[in-house]
Amino acid sequence: MEEIIGIFAGIFTTIAAVPQIYRAWRTKKVDDVSPKMFFTLTLGVLLWTVYGVMKKDVPIIVTNGISTLLNITMFMLIFKYREQNKSQTQ
Amino acid sequence: MEEIIGIFAGIFTTIAAVPQIYRAWRTKKVDDVSPKMFFTLTLGVLLWTVYGVMKKDVPIIVTNGISTLLNITMFMLIFKYREQNKSQTQ
Repeated sequence: MEEIIGIFAGIFTTIAAVPQIYRAWRTKKVDDVSPKMFFTLTLGVLLWTVYGVMKKDVPIIVTNGISTLLNITMFMLIFKYREQNKSQTQ
Repeated sequence: MEEIIGIFAGIFTTIAAVPQIYRAWRTKKVDDVSPKMFFTLTLGVLLWTVYGVMKKDVPIIVTNGISTLLNITMFMLIFKYREQNKSQTQ
C-alpha cells in the first residue's frame, strides 16, 4: 500500500510542471510566473538526483532526473518569452 | 555527505513555491500561472505526506506537509485573483 501511494506521489510531483510548460508554450506569456520558483525547484530536484546517485536509488534518480529536465525547460521558457515580448513592444 | 545534500534538496523543493506566492500576492496577477500545475503538485506532495505518515518518516512528513500548505495557498490565490480581476473588468 505504501508503495502504491509512493508511486502515485512520485508521478504527480514529477509531471506537475508539464501543464505549466504547455500553458507558457501555447500563450507565449510568462509575466506572472516566478523565475525564482523554477530556479529553486530545479536546484532542489537536481540535488535530489545527486542524492539518488550517491544512494544508488533508481526511483529517486528517475523521478528527480525527469523533474530537473522539466523545470529547467520552464525556467528557460520564462526568459525566452520575456525577451520575445520585450522586443515586440519596442 | 548524502545527508547534507538531502537536507538542502528538501529545503529547496519545499520553499520553491514561496517566491511564486509572493509574486502573485504583490501583483494580484495570475493569468500566466497554470492552476493544473499547482493542483497536481498539491496532490503529489499530499500523497508524499501520507506516505511519510505510513512509513513514520518525520523528514518526509515535515517537508511535504509544508509543501502541501504552500501549494494549496498558491492554488487558492489563483482562483481568488482570477475572480477579482474578472469582476473588475465587468
